[in-house]
Order: sequence, then structure tokens, then C-alpha cells
Amino acid sequence: MSASAFNLKDYLASHTRKVEQALNKNLPTKRTSPAVLHEAMRHSMFAGGKRLRPILALAAAEACGGKIEDALLPACAVECIHTYSLIHDDLPCMDDDDMRRGVPTCHVVYGEANALLAGDALAALAFELIAQHPGTENYSTAAMVSELAHTSGSRWLIGGQVLDLECEGDPSKVNAARLKQIHLAKTSALLTTSLRLGAMAANASTRELEALTEFGQATGLAFQIIDDILDATQSSEKLGKTAGKDAATGKATYPAIHGMEKSKKEAARLTRKALDALIVFKEKGTALDHIGRYLLDRDY
Amino acid sequence: MSASAFNLKDYLASHTRKVEQALNKNLPTKRTSPAVLHEAMRHSMFAGGKRLRPILALAAAEACGGKIEDALLPACAVECIHTYSLIHDDLPCMDDDDMRRGVPTCHVVYGEANALLAGDALAALAFELIAQHPGTENYSTAAMVSELAHTSGSRWLIGGQVLDLECEGDPSKVNAARLKQIHLAKTSALLTTSLRLGAMAANASTRELEALTEFGQATGLAFQIIDDILDATQSSEKLGKTAGKDAATGKATYPAIHGMEKSKKEAARLTRKALDALIVFKEKGTALDHIGRYLLDRDY
Repeated sequence: MSASAFNLKDYLASHTRKVEQALNKNLPTKRTSPAVLHEAMRHSMFAGGKRLRPILALAAAEACGGKIEDALLPACAVECIHTYSLIHDDLPCMDDDDMRRGVPTCHVVYGEANALLAGDALAALAFELIAQHPGTENYSTAAMVSELAHTSGSRWLIGGQVLDLECEGDPSKVNAARLKQIHLAKTSALLTTSLRLGAMAANASTRELEALTEFGQATGLAFQIIDDILDATQSSEKLGKTAGKDAATGKATYPAIHGMEKSKKEAARLTRKALDALIVFKEKGTALDHIGRYLLDRDY
Repeated sequence: MSASAFNLKDYLASHTRKVEQALNKNLPTKRTSPAVLHEAMRHSMFAGGKRLRPILALAAAEACGGKIEDALLPACAVECIHTYSLIHDDLPCMDDDDMRRGVPTCHVVYGEANALLAGDALAALAFELIAQHPGTENYSTAAMVSELAHTSGSRWLIGGQVLDLECEGDPSKVNAARLKQIHLAKTSALLTTSLRLGAMAANASTRELEALTEFGQATGLAFQIIDDILDATQSSEKLGKTAGKDAATGKATYPAIHGMEKSKKEAARLTRKALDALIVFKEKGTALDHIGRYLLDRDY
């Protein structure tokens, strides 16, 4: 894969800018009544997110020969789902987090009730936005709505959170299959759907859609395993956050279940699998290849 | 409107049965993983709701010459949205209600985190179900998704809850326009969308859709005004719940803002408006006419 002319930093900067513009356009203004609700929605939506999911949607559309503009609605929709899930995750009855990326969380600023409702409203907005996409020859708008609803629902995103809550503080409940299931549901599913919706917006072939599904699942899983490894092996200084937190909080991790050597091998295998899945796109897959390496080529 | 052969009790019984069957079929079983999540979703979904919104969807479809079967997916979808909003409304950070219709609320049985997530999952399921509808000649599936998403979102259902929270305990914040806005957003909007989605599923004409919109808005508003009047005038025994609760909790009501006489006149005017809107359906509107009278012909 030729990448001589490709600059990931520039790519991320330009695509982030387009995502920010589209989100700003697609969220009601702060002055829309009720103002406190729309302020709360915007507070969390513009709180420094990396926009990984929408950028994956745009990159997938490009890999399938489509234009960025065709994938902006799905890109905004997946970011609405991601942000709503973070707002609800941070609530006192869930993880009870006061800060996220150095910014006070939604309920700290606007109160629990408004935060709960801001999350609910972002979920509804996600479906309002995806329903505005005209669809393509191979994929109807309804198919895109189904993809987003299924991934957001009780079997995937929300199911994963429930499984994770069940196992919290009791790693004995978590075997290898369960841990994989949690990672697939909580992380891989929405990454994969972001890629798939971008591809659908670009009228992808079945082969392209399958390749992106494989890339998304392997990338999400590898990313989580690498996170687990780094938490156990790196210094807090190098991580940029408290190291060894998983062991201290009794969290089930890949190294704890499979051992360090096997975990590293699995991370490497999944990274290869993810990047190999992109071969079908040839040069058009360059951006995704770089994003994949950026996420997975960490020093573990 | 001829109604000699019409029996509302039988109609409600038979239609409720079809709604219950469809909901049972369309919700994942209790054993679906994660079981606690699907149990929580089913706990609230089958906790004795009257199924008013899905029955309105079916009745609207019939009024437009369609079959019940064509409207079962929208019927289930609006009930998912209604149930999710009740689960979130009952949470400690919102109304903090332990019981609803004599049954412990979702968070009392399953804990706050699972109740929050069960509500989230029912919202996602609503969109998964409506996306399965094939659409009709005049209305695409996307149009049906948009209708549901817009009504569930920050401008209507959720917006109304936020406005209501803002005004709670401080009726001085509520003028006549604001009170009407809250009732339209919190009650009329989802009733109207239930009717509209049923009509869209039956490929309604523009005129039929407009008539149902008028019927839904007027019915929802009249219903709330009558509720306010009864709370102020009836005994607790007759109401079947604590009377005078609105005044005691400092809630803004129609009689408090407009006076009792004007409120009664407005309720009567809106009731007439609602029933008059059904004239376009001739005999096919009999069921809706009876449901409207059942909701609004109360002794106020």
C-alpha cells in the first residue's frame, strides 16, 4: 500500500474540521427552546471528543469510492449515539464520573435530570439525522436506520454495558468468552457500524462492506487488548493516566485471563487481521490503513 | 356517525390483545443475553399499560382504510417510546416514583443503572421496529422514522419534560402559552404521532393525515385541561387518586391560569374540534370517535 504522499495528521485535521462543521449545523442552536436542554446537548457534544467514529465513517465512504459529503449524516449520527452513551455512562447511577477529557461532565454542569434528557435527546437526534440520508442503490435509508438501531440496542452497545456492570468488581464472573463479548459489544460494534454506515452511504459492494466489518471488529478488539496490556505493563507517566488501575479495581482483563504472552500474540494477530482486511481497497484504503496503525501500533 | 353496532369495550379488548401479542413477539425474550436487561425491559413494558397510543395507531390505520396488521410495527414502536419515557421519568433524579399502576417501577426492581439502560434499549428498539416497516406508496420508511424521531426528540417529548421540570414548584414561571406548550409537547405530540404513523402505514391521503393531526392535538390538549379541572373539583374517591395534588404541589394548571369557567369552555371547544376533525372519515372513523369521547366525555 503506497502511502508516500499520505499525511495522517493533515487527514485527521481536515476530516475533523468537516465533522465539527456538520455537527454544529445538525445540532439545534443553544437558543432553541428549551435552551438548557440544547446547551446540555452541545456541552457534551463539543467537549473535546476525538471524533474517531465519524472519521471512520468518512474514511470508509472514501475507501468505497464515495464522497465525504455523502457520509456526513451517518458520521453525525454515530457521534450522537457515542456522546449520548458517554453522558449516560457518566451519571451517578452508572460510573459517576465528574470529569471527562478535562471538562466537567454533563450532569455536573446541568444536573442529573437534564443530563439524562440530553442523552435521550441525542439518541433521538441520531435517528432523525440518519433518516435524512437518501440511501443509495444498494442500501435503503431503512437499512441504515436498522444498522444504527440494532447496534445501539439491547444486544450490542447497551447489552455490553449491562454485561460490564454485572462483572464489575467480580472478575471471577468473567471468562474468556464473556470478556470478548463485552469488548465486541461495547467497543467494536459502534466502530464497525460507523464504518459500515459510511460504506453504505457510498453504495459499497458486499465485499467492501464485509471487509470493513472485519476491519472494525478486529480493530476494536485489538485496541481493547492493547489497552489492557499497557495498563499492566507501562508506567502511569508513559500512559498519561493511572497505570495498574485494572488490577487495583479487580477488573477482568486479557492478560489476567490469558496471560501476557498470549495477549500480546492475540493483539498482534488481530492487528494483522484488521490491516489485511483493507487489501481489497488497494490505494483507496490508505487512510483507513493509517488510522488502523495509529490506533494499534502502540509500544506493547 | 352511525355507531349502533359499535361496542367500544369489545373493540378495545380485541385491539389490546393484538397489541400485546405484537409487543411480546417484538421484544427480545427474557432469556436473551443480557437477561437482566431484557427482563427489565419486559417488566416495564408489561406492567399494565392501557396501550392507548398503539390502539390509536391501529384505529387510525383502520380509519384510513388500512389493515391492523399493517400498523402493528408503528403501534409497537410508539409504545416502546412511551414506556422508555416512563422508565426515565420514574428515576430518582426525575420524579422519583417507586410505584406505577400498582407495580414497582423499573429501578426499584432492577436498580437505577439497569432501569436507565432498559429505557435506552426500548428507545433503540422503537427505531429498530419502525425501520422494519416497508413503507407505503405515499410514505417511505424514512418518513416514518423521521416522524417518530422528531416527536421523541429535544423539541417535543423531551423538550416538554425539560420545560415541565423548569417550572416545577414555581408556577409563576408558567404563563398560558408556556402551559399549552408543555401539554402539546408532553402529551399531544406522541398521541398525534401514534395516529399519524398508523395513518402512514395505511397510505393515508394528505387530508386524512391532517385530520388525524388535528384530532390528536386537540384530544391531547383537551385531555390535560380536563385532568386539571377534575383535580381541582373532584373528590379523591371519585378521581381514584389524590385530588387537589396540583394546588398542593404548586403545579401550574389551566384553572389556576385561566379560571375554572374559561378552562371548561376551552375543554369543550377542543373536544368538539377533535371530534369534528373525524368527519372526513365518515363511518370508518367510528372507533376513533368512540375513543375520543371515552377520553374526553368526563364529568367536569
